[in-house]
Amino acid sequence: MIDVQKTALIVSAHSADFVWRAGGAIALHAAHGYAVHIVCLSMGERGESAKLWRKGDMTEERVKAVRRDEALAAAEVLGASVEFFDIGDYPMRADNDTLFRLADVFRRLQPAFVLSHSLKDPYNYDHPLAMNLTQEARIIAQAEGYNPGEKILGAPPVYSFEPHQPEQCEWRPDVFLDITEVWDKKYAAIQCMAGQEHLWEYYTRVALQRGVQAKRNVGITSSRNIVYAEGYQSLFPRVTEHLA
Amino acid sequence: MIDVQKTALIVSAHSADFVWRAGGAIALHAAHGYAVHIVCLSMGERGESAKLWRKGDMTEERVKAVRRDEALAAAEVLGASVEFFDIGDYPMRADNDTLFRLADVFRRLQPAFVLSHSLKDPYNYDHPLAMNLTQEARIIAQAEGYNPGEKILGAPPVYSFEPHQPEQCEWRPDVFLDITEVWDKKYAAIQCMAGQEHLWEYYTRVALQRGVQAKRNVGITSSRNIVYAEGYQSLFPRVTEHLA
Amino acid sequence: MIDVQKTALIVSAHSADFVWRAGGAIALHAAHGYAVHIVCLSMGERGESAKLWRKGDMTEERVKAVRRDEALAAAEVLGASVEFFDIGDYPMRADNDTLFRLADVFRRLQPAFVLSHSLKDPYNYDHPLAMNLTQEARIIAQAEGYNPGEKILGAPPVYSFEPHQPEQCEWRPDVFLDITEVWDKKYAAIQCMAGQEHLWEYYTRVALQRGVQAKRNVGITSSRNIVYAEGYQSLFPRVTEHLA
Amino acid sequence: MIDVQKTALIVSAHSADFVWRAGGAIALHAAHGYAVHIVCLSMGERGESAKLWRKGDMTEERVKAVRRDEALAAAEVLGASVEFFDIGDYPMRADNDTLFRLADVFRRLQPAFVLSHSLKDPYNYDHPLAMNLTQEARIIAQAEGYNPGEKILGAPPVYSFEPHQPEQCEWRPDVFLDITEVWDKKYAAIQCMAGQEHLWEYYTRVALQRGVQAKRNVGITSSRNIVYAEGYQSLFPRVTEHLA
Amino acid sequence: MIDVQKTALIVSAHSADFVWRAGGAIALHAAHGYAVHIVCLSMGERGESAKLWRKGDMTEERVKAVRRDEALAAAEVLGASVEFFDIGDYPMRADNDTLFRLADVFRRLQPAFVLSHSLKDPYNYDHPLAMNLTQEARIIAQAEGYNPGEKILGAPPVYSFEPHQPEQCEWRPDVFLDITEVWDKKYAAIQCMAGQEHLWEYYTRVALQRGVQAKRNVGITSSRNIVYAEGYQSLFPRVTEHLA
Amino acid sequence: MIDVQKTALIVSAHSADFVWRAGGAIALHAAHGYAVHIVCLSMGERGESAKLWRKGDMTEERVKAVRRDEALAAAEVLGASVEFFDIGDYPMRADNDTLFRLADVFRRLQPAFVLSHSLKDPYNYDHPLAMNLTQEARIIAQAEGYNPGEKILGAPPVYSFEPHQPEQCEWRPDVFLDITEVWDKKYAAIQCMAGQEHLWEYYTRVALQRGVQAKRNVGITSSRNIVYAEGYQSLFPRVTEHLA
Repeated sequence: MIDVQKTALIVSAHSADFVWRAGGAIALHAAHGYAVHIVCLSMGERGESAKLWRKGDMTEERVKAVRRDEALAAAEVLGASVEFFDIGDYPMRADNDTLFRLADVFRRLQPAFVLSHSLKDPYNYDHPLAMNLTQEARIIAQAEGYNPGEKILGAPPVYSFEPHQPEQCEWRPDVFLDITEVWDKKYAAIQCMAGQEHLWEYYTRVALQRGVQAKRNVGITSSRNIVYAEGYQSLFPRVTEHLA
Repeated sequence: MIDVQKTALIVSAHSADFVWRAGGAIALHAAHGYAVHIVCLSMGERGESAKLWRKGDMTEERVKAVRRDEALAAAEVLGASVEFFDIGDYPMRADNDTLFRLADVFRRLQPAFVLSHSLKDPYNYDHPLAMNLTQEARIIAQAEGYNPGEKILGAPPVYSFEPHQPEQCEWRPDVFLDITEVWDKKYAAIQCMAGQEHLWEYYTRVALQRGVQAKRNVGITSSRNIVYAEGYQSLFPRVTEHLA
Repeated sequence: MIDVQKTALIVSAHSADFVWRAGGAIALHAAHGYAVHIVCLSMGERGESAKLWRKGDMTEERVKAVRRDEALAAAEVLGASVEFFDIGDYPMRADNDTLFRLADVFRRLQPAFVLSHSLKDPYNYDHPLAMNLTQEARIIAQAEGYNPGEKILGAPPVYSFEPHQPEQCEWRPDVFLDITEVWDKKYAAIQCMAGQEHLWEYYTRVALQRGVQAKRNVGITSSRNIVYAEGYQSLFPRVTEHLA
Repeated sequence: MIDVQKTALIVSAHSADFVWRAGGAIALHAAHGYAVHIVCLSMGERGESAKLWRKGDMTEERVKAVRRDEALAAAEVLGASVEFFDIGDYPMRADNDTLFRLADVFRRLQPAFVLSHSLKDPYNYDHPLAMNLTQEARIIAQAEGYNPGEKILGAPPVYSFEPHQPEQCEWRPDVFLDITEVWDKKYAAIQCMAGQEHLWEYYTRVALQRGVQAKRNVGITSSRNIVYAEGYQSLFPRVTEHLA
Repeated sequence: MIDVQKTALIVSAHSADFVWRAGGAIALHAAHGYAVHIVCLSMGERGESAKLWRKGDMTEERVKAVRRDEALAAAEVLGASVEFFDIGDYPMRADNDTLFRLADVFRRLQPAFVLSHSLKDPYNYDHPLAMNLTQEARIIAQAEGYNPGEKILGAPPVYSFEPHQPEQCEWRPDVFLDITEVWDKKYAAIQCMAGQEHLWEYYTRVALQRGVQAKRNVGITSSRNIVYAEGYQSLFPRVTEHLA
Repeated sequence: MIDVQKTALIVSAHSADFVWRAGGAIALHAAHGYAVHIVCLSMGERGESAKLWRKGDMTEERVKAVRRDEALAAAEVLGASVEFFDIGDYPMRADNDTLFRLADVFRRLQPAFVLSHSLKDPYNYDHPLAMNLTQEARIIAQAEGYNPGEKILGAPPVYSFEPHQPEQCEWRPDVFLDITEVWDKKYAAIQCMAGQEHLWEYYTRVALQRGVQAKRNVGITSSRNIVYAEGYQSLFPRVTEHLA
């Protein structure tokens, strides 16, 4: 009964962002039965493939192919599907066709939650573009008058995953996701990113720091044994029936 | 097995604040088995008892007695216990004895969550004082070196309930609590506040507006039938195992 | 002497926004002799016409025609003129022609004040677009080198009217407009919006809440009898000769 | 009929603050019939009398006497009355007696508006203290239960006047007051401050800059001839019947 | 050995912005051996040439020619080179060609620091556009995959120079540059701007005010004799080996 | 010639804060000839000595003695002097005597820069108190009228060092200090804190992360070999003669 399976949507500006920033959330929800789908807007072929370019004898197509393979491998490790919009990076630009294509993904998936980038990032203008595109596509997918007759989208929560330099992006986590049980999968996915090996230990430390902070926010007397965590910032209020 | 009952703590600057601002949360959690405890720092005898004073022939003690009775009645309707610190209002001042008294309440209750005022309120300086007192008491109750040997406090989430003029207080709700099932109790508690009848319909409308907003944030396609809600602002990140 | 009549300009992203958010201001200033002109950038045909679409057997043109009629009726009730730019919604996009067209409206009207949307709205990307378009058109209309020889625009104050979920839009009212005397007209205009009946009572309550807040901000001892109000946020400082 | 004269209250942390920061507002409203009353919380004897101390052979009493005379002279030039609370500076501390004393001033004056310092100032901790004291005194004066039987205070608007380094104090003017017609009086009052001559030209330039900005905010096509202005930041929304 | 000369890049939306806002920084660094290069995105022909247009008998080309000459004269006085992208103003729009052109300037110059406008300016939408263009061009110039084989850009610090109404632009200076030694050059460059004489004294006063503030931030006991200064806001953290 | 030696002042709320948060800055400046002086306001005996208390058979005096010894050992490793104000923690309170005592330290030291905590910390109210005390003491030490005749303080820059959960404290680093050359000293000092061994690796990772970020902010093409760094937030603008 595939149609009752819960889904989640991750929108990644470049082909590796989803690994560093949301790999734990992807693996965790996949492990719990979610169909997690990743949209890579670009392969990060210009801006995030320095190691490949330095090898020399490269073309944009060859870089993209390598990056695509890495992303596919990482997604498989995490247990998610992935598609590539291939709209280019540095600079990234999204026209209405891209917007509608993403709105259609929203409609098809009807995701239970959505992850993308922070709304500000002075180091990387593609990142805010990706989140704004995601937000606007979500709005369009909610509109009865867009492709009338299709099932419209509800109001899935949207979260910003962690940018490289959080304070400079005015990003403040209000959710810590305990990813301890899937850390091995996240680290395996990280290792698929051969071209950015300098980031492997950086994001391992991020996960450990967020783990300590998560532990502190449940209280040191708690029996929850959190070692690794990911931080997220909610873009909308959540609705609940209990405050504990 | 009283000792495994979950508890909650509400810190109310004046004796009616808990009714308008958190009556739904109190009734809802009480209905679901929580022992909800309210600390009224003052009776609001000076600042929030205008109607009583205008009757004439009043003393502070008489005003306080009336307000105390109203608060007790409201708490009973909501299913909560209440105690009065009676530290005065307009201005409210808290010395270390008050701070430790509240820290001791934290230790005794070990609440699963905590509610108090917004951190800013240009219309009412007692309100931020109440929240700051709550936050500092929570910190002290967490310290191993405060009354060593006692069971220390964990890290219960803390929420600001809604002030009278939310935007002027820089208060932004990130949680909507569905209180539809207990609205009748909240409104009955509101009616215990005979001295502030001008606020009854105001806070009924607040609950309806927050209900509409909550409904919109779960999506108009949702089957959840939310009519009344309360808004809350989290002061700490929450820790979770799922993002949906 | 039509040329000395004061004017006002309202820029509404969708054809009903001006009713919910600024209907009181429009009716009030119209009643006091202003020529109030409304620009509807779109009819809200895709995003704000759910009820019409659900009727079935609809086309975008038919939806737009109904919405146009509703908006015309509402504007007439309020005493204002209206024109439709018809640039589409969900998503809304404005090219330079639209920008210049709006700048020309500014030049022609020479409005004494301007109303449009909040600068942020995570629920509706058309709204900030409308305000940014308004701001940029105002700037262009002020430039001596745009259509040289025309009378340039002064510096009319610009206000954001109230969005659906004010705190989520970082909207903070710094002006409350007393609309008590024209409330009947605003409510009559609201009733023209047959397609969005679910919002009638919502915005009635908004007006009542802002009325209570306005009353509190003039002081409960004031003789001003405010029941209904609208909130506005100023985008520029005002210049005055007195502070009372 | 003195009892119908409009009044204004200025709360100045040190004895010269009211001159630099609000001298124009004082002179302007005095000229228009207001009884303007200034409360100097201290003489600025420690922190703002460097020139006097450097003369040598000084005591705190002698410094205070000189500063008091300067303030009296400046107030006279501006047309205002002044009283000195003399609670000391660097550091300034206000106990409940001071708070009630200021609340009583509010009750007695029933001011139409109130001016004091910015809520933040990393260069001068006495300044935010003065504004917080002012805000809390205003709140107490509004409370029916404070000295019951007295006429309670309404809700006069409160403004922060300009600090020395506005951006560092997170101060943003939302009101420009045209003080062109009383500039000569303000400058005469400034010249009473013999001990701080280094600030005379600084605050003359402030007035000129704010004048240019005010002119720009009414529009260069306006016939208003503004040369000197003072900037103010509102702490509460204003209530109005027109937006132009 | 020209290739070891340090360079700096200034991106000016209109042809006079660099004079008012960064003339001191340009002259100072030029005097100290930097090759300072200015990119004027437009001549400000529509929006900042009111005086020329009012002369009558003007065309856009003639206005641009005059403005270009003024800018060239000012740059020469300051000791800098200048190029004109001539992309138009009011409104300014930048396509990808302009973006890449500016990225190429970054690559060619390898500037040690970069100056442009504030990220917000409600009075002038061209200004934030210029800074965002500058930031994105810098990012692209850093990308190994943009024009592979060229020497990529490092991470030069970027500063916002002072807008006309700083507080309204949420601009806060965190750096004061002492320009006392080159003030005569800056004022000479200012005098080249014949079309905007009304701003000469305004920006002279800005320099004096920032000078006083700079002096205060080094301490009145300092021997540094600062009279004129410019304020800047950093967009990135700086990296240092000492905190004094 | 001790009197020309440059000095620095660190104000630490609890006896270990200076190690985790500023140990690198202390060691670096000490190595470069500064006399670095640390004021520990408390020993952290209640709030930050959990491990000691859990040993049992403890008194506050014994805890304080152990913590004092640890702090002395750490300071010696770093090359700094330390004094203990011993004003207690959880809650920390500072009276005027403490304020003047710290102002006297400022006057005596005449520090070239000052380090203390962030201005907000919802997890620890002692931390903002320490910074506010530091700021106010600095202001008093600048006042000619405080202990007239003494040499007044200039305007040394003040920085907030890194709190435990930076984003929750609204702390944003605008300075990265390269501490690579003294990391071994910092880590040796960290190891003196036997009672908080759970934090050793946490703050090692903080130093590594800030190192990566510092490296990125100088540009990956830079020859600077930064491995470990500390982040700081400036509370005042800096004054400079160059922008590179």
